Amino acid sequence: MINISLPDGSVKQMENGATPMDVARSISEGLARNVISAKFNKETVETSTPLTTDGSIVLYTWNDDEGKEAFRHSSSHVLAQALLELYPGVKLTIGPAIENGFYYDVDTGDHVISDKDFKRIEDKMLEIARGKHDFKMRSVTKDEALAKYKAEGNEYKVELIENLEDGTITFCDHDTFTDLCRGGHIPNTGIIKAVKIMSVAGAYWRGDENKPQLTRVYGTSFPKQKDLKEYLELLEEAKKRDHRKLGKELELFTFSKKVGQGLPLWLPKGAALRERLENFLKDAQKKAGYEMVVSPHIAQKELYITSGHFAKYGEDSFQPINTPAEGEEFLLKPMNCPHHCEMYNARPWSYKELPKRYAEFGTVYRYEQSGELHGLTRVRGFTQDDAHIFCTPDQIDFEFKNVIDLVLYVFGSLGFADFTAQVSLRDPEKPEKYIGSDENWEKAENAILNAAKEKGLNYVIETGEAAFYGPKLDFMVKDALGRSWQLGTIQVDYNLPERFELTYKGSDNELHRPVMIHRAPFGSMERFIAILLEHTGGNFPLWLVPEQAIILTLSEKYEKYAKKVLNLLENHEIRALVDYRGETMGKKIREAEMQKIPFMIIIGEQEEKDNTISVRRHGGEDMGNMTIDAFAKAVQTEIKETIKTFEV
Amino acid sequence: MINISLPDGSVKQMENGATPMDVARSISEGLARNVISAKFNKETVETSTPLTTDGSIVLYTWNDDEGKEAFRHSSSHVLAQALLELYPGVKLTIGPAIENGFYYDVDTGDHVISDKDFKRIEDKMLEIARGKHDFKMRSVTKDEALAKYKAEGNEYKVELIENLEDGTITFCDHDTFTDLCRGGHIPNTGIIKAVKIMSVAGAYWRGDENKPQLTRVYGTSFPKQKDLKEYLELLEEAKKRDHRKLGKELELFTFSKKVGQGLPLWLPKGAALRERLENFLKDAQKKAGYEMVVSPHIAQKELYITSGHFAKYGEDSFQPINTPAEGEEFLLKPMNCPHHCEMYNARPWSYKELPKRYAEFGTVYRYEQSGELHGLTRVRGFTQDDAHIFCTPDQIDFEFKNVIDLVLYVFGSLGFADFTAQVSLRDPEKPEKYIGSDENWEKAENAILNAAKEKGLNYVIETGEAAFYGPKLDFMVKDALGRSWQLGTIQVDYNLPERFELTYKGSDNELHRPVMIHRAPFGSMERFIAILLEHTGGNFPLWLVPEQAIILTLSEKYEKYAKKVLNLLENHEIRALVDYRGETMGKKIREAEMQKIPFMIIIGEQEEKDNTISVRRHGGEDMGNMTIDAFAKAVQTEIKETIKTFEV
Repeated sequence: MINISLPDGSVKQMENGATPMDVARSISEGLARNVISAKFNKETVETSTPLTTDGSIVLYTWNDDEGKEAFRHSSSHVLAQALLELYPGVKLTIGPAIENGFYYDVDTGDHVISDKDFKRIEDKMLEIARGKHDFKMRSVTKDEALAKYKAEGNEYKVELIENLEDGTITFCDHDTFTDLCRGGHIPNTGIIKAVKIMSVAGAYWRGDENKPQLTRVYGTSFPKQKDLKEYLELLEEAKKRDHRKLGKELELFTFSKKVGQGLPLWLPKGAALRERLENFLKDAQKKAGYEMVVSPHIAQKELYITSGHFAKYGEDSFQPINTPAEGEEFLLKPMNCPHHCEMYNARPWSYKELPKRYAEFGTVYRYEQSGELHGLTRVRGFTQDDAHIFCTPDQIDFEFKNVIDLVLYVFGSLGFADFTAQVSLRDPEKPEKYIGSDENWEKAENAILNAAKEKGLNYVIETGEAAFYGPKLDFMVKDALGRSWQLGTIQVDYNLPERFELTYKGSDNELHRPVMIHRAPFGSMERFIAILLEHTGGNFPLWLVPEQAIILTLSEKYEKYAKKVLNLLENHEIRALVDYRGETMGKKIREAEMQKIPFMIIIGEQEEKDNTISVRRHGGEDMGNMTIDAFAKAVQTEIKETIKTFEV
Repeated sequence: MINISLPDGSVKQMENGATPMDVARSISEGLARNVISAKFNKETVETSTPLTTDGSIVLYTWNDDEGKEAFRHSSSHVLAQALLELYPGVKLTIGPAIENGFYYDVDTGDHVISDKDFKRIEDKMLEIARGKHDFKMRSVTKDEALAKYKAEGNEYKVELIENLEDGTITFCDHDTFTDLCRGGHIPNTGIIKAVKIMSVAGAYWRGDENKPQLTRVYGTSFPKQKDLKEYLELLEEAKKRDHRKLGKELELFTFSKKVGQGLPLWLPKGAALRERLENFLKDAQKKAGYEMVVSPHIAQKELYITSGHFAKYGEDSFQPINTPAEGEEFLLKPMNCPHHCEMYNARPWSYKELPKRYAEFGTVYRYEQSGELHGLTRVRGFTQDDAHIFCTPDQIDFEFKNVIDLVLYVFGSLGFADFTAQVSLRDPEKPEKYIGSDENWEKAENAILNAAKEKGLNYVIETGEAAFYGPKLDFMVKDALGRSWQLGTIQVDYNLPERFELTYKGSDNELHRPVMIHRAPFGSMERFIAILLEHTGGNFPLWLVPEQAIILTLSEKYEKYAKKVLNLLENHEIRALVDYRGETMGKKIREAEMQKIPFMIIIGEQEEKDNTISVRRHGGEDMGNMTIDAFAKAVQTEIKETIKTFEV
């Protein structure tokens, strides 16, 4: 008999040679039906692997990330078998599980796989799946392994095997198919109920452009047809909400080849939206005791040598800017903190004057390879809603709470209700990795944990994830499609105050080092607006949306009244415009819907006569006939409900 | 007899050989007393030069720039004589008139001239001046000229003469002194009544650092002692108002060696002031139909090749920024216009949608040699209050008037009452120098002249001063010390629309080129704030000043009441702070005066009891005891009087 301990701490006595599936069955039939993968003593095993020693087990279902990974990995075996059966002569290379699916890189020789083949591949995969073939691992010698693939003429697998050590090589069999594999499968192919080939792309063998080009076949698979359907709908919705598409349709921003990739140009509506967001944060920050500063977008290399950024990022960054005659070297600013340190250093400080909170909407430039660029979420130039708090170690506690309040206010006003926090602490076993005294670290970590608790955050602690210069707290928000984004960060820093020799005079009349806190509730204006676009599908909160109302005239006869209404709305500080065109009302409404304008104000004979307006909400709700004052009041009430005043 | 025509068109018959002084005397004795230099047929002559042909004459007095130049040039001869007499062996090189004075570069051998010598030099100069020695020109042959300076061992003058053509060389004599000179003197040294040696500095022979170092002696001189006194007082006042000094004292901005020269860092008070100025202009611009945009601070070199800036400025600018792997080249943005052109090009336009007015507070970077940098007036990075209007040729007229209204509004709100305009038109005789059709130039020039007239500007026309791409209008303002600054520019541009192939669809359904108008009422935020600091001596208009009021407590007992007053003032949107320190009231007032805070609010027992405040105006005026509401009303009234609402 062997002792198997379970995650809940309980221990099961099992016969020597029992499998993880046996363990599952010993707990319940229901669990046995759902278990699809397992770890034993922290190593991935098959659910059919006989256990022969005492140890701890974890069983996974589709609901676990580990279960999904085994499911997708197993699906790639099925994909490989299908490709081999459909296109004999195809050479397999590697086929891992990835986020939301899996792929297999294959050398298809002269055959070209295109989207016309997808249906055939899916059908073949489902046919194999329905066979309920068990996945079975077996050890082979290096010679046996090489022999198989040399016989098949597959130089890729031969190359892979040549780099493996004899005695560690395993194959996985199912049905008629065998693949070189380290293990980690679901019990059998029958669990795969739904498959979809998503796309094909070119890929170089081992990612090296000097090596042969392969075909990468991307797929996804699910244990239920319904899950696949939901996933495809989500993808469809995400496509509709793609911020690059919406940004263009709503005329928020554009890119220009001549200006350069990854450098957004903010068009009037986007620039105004950005400014509204900035003003919203500025107002709250002012109440929270921040002071705005302005710094240039370049600095001498020396500044980044002092800060340490040049040693760390210099070679992979935008290269230095030389001056014609004087041999100076400047760098584009990758972060605002060194500039703010120099501002702090412009005069001496007393402890009575701290904290100083320098805030700046600072545009920074960081080189990203062009292939990595993506709309506004991955750019080469972006504006951080940055601030640096210079405080005494004893003030960290208060400052952290202050920042959390601000971040929660921002999320609340922008409709992000679902978020979690991650607190990154140092690894207490490796104190040599970190700068700053033990005492200060303890103070800062306790301050963060206290603040997180007191503010009722839903947080996880990640030990060992702190930066070398200090602990931090990051916010993760879920958008309307359930996708997670990192937004908002608060970081303690003991490093820069040291490097810039920042000081303040304490109550003891001695000079001390202040602590720095970096923080950015939005993160960057670009990325935040991208996420907000995708979260809201372009239906921004009313206080933020470019145009709050559009006046639609039933005919050109009502132009004068339209102008009067526009004027009155503007007096009520409602952003509005008029569609004067001689188009049909149907067309005008459709286009206003496309523009995602919250309110359509329809005016014709009756409205002009009664001095009223008829209001239609975006999406179709008829709000009926009302006075302009009543409408303005409704708009103001809705705004007040979403965006409260920030209170310190 | 010869005919001498005067600037008023009249003609004088004079004897052949009459001098300009004779002409003056023939007009009036008063004029003869004041004439100090002359031009004959547009050539500089001495007042003692015999005139032997018909021609036109202009006579200058100290009140003319040309008169001042002759005065200063002549004074440099006197300086040279004085130096030679005081320090025998000194070698003279060159000694021109400059703005506000003159200098002479001399090789003093082993002798060092320092400020301890100034009095002696001044006394010697005045002694020479009192001799009333006439300045007399004479022609010499090249050999004679060389012989003189070779005998003296003056290799500098020898070098100068060697580069001159025989037959064109003249000497000027006065008293015992002779100098190589092209002429243009006052009648005699006696007119110089006041002299002052201002400073000495090092200078390289011919400005070449590989050549010998010389001593540059700077001086100034006046026809009356009173003028010198006024000039020195003005200098003293200008020194007090130096924006670099005030900027530091008022904690508006700072510079950092590590960040780099010419790159200002805006501290909280300065950044807030900047923002108030920006918001002030933004509000007016919004009413005038501008839309804000945001563009990055770099662009690919290609953008500036398209715009033509790279060909023109590339080599003398900040050098290109390379990317690590992709071989791209970016440039720091020297102007915003190319970016705005690309924004315009993001979609097609109809004539019905024009004008488009893109505004941006765009920070640009231009390389200046470090020796040229000066505080905020000459920097390497600055923020333009930039806008580009894209319009049809027919709209220029309206747009120009619109911009002039805006500029006048800006000047009025900031206390610049004394300004003139310069309209720069093309040279009609050289049409090949300009881009754009005759018809369009005529339209634009007429539009500018009409607008200037209609808006009642005090303007001068400078023919031939237009840029190659279009005519322009510049504003010159006089500050409180009478110094002129160029502020605010409006320029028509036919070039960039061509280079960027900008188009709009006209009413004829054909594509046309729009015209661009560049304009910046402030010019740049940095330069404008510097000028405003010097104009106001740091006493900013009330709406703009960093802190409008400071609460001074008579003792620590009144801290609670001070907080209450502060809170009430903040509710009235008055920017205030409290000086809680236990210092004497005298010291608190002195420091508040230094900080140039407009209102000092003094509170003690009586004020707390009565729920009032006692107000002292910056500069000393006692405004007496009043309620907080009354004070707030007074502040608001004063603000409303200086900064009116902009009306389109």
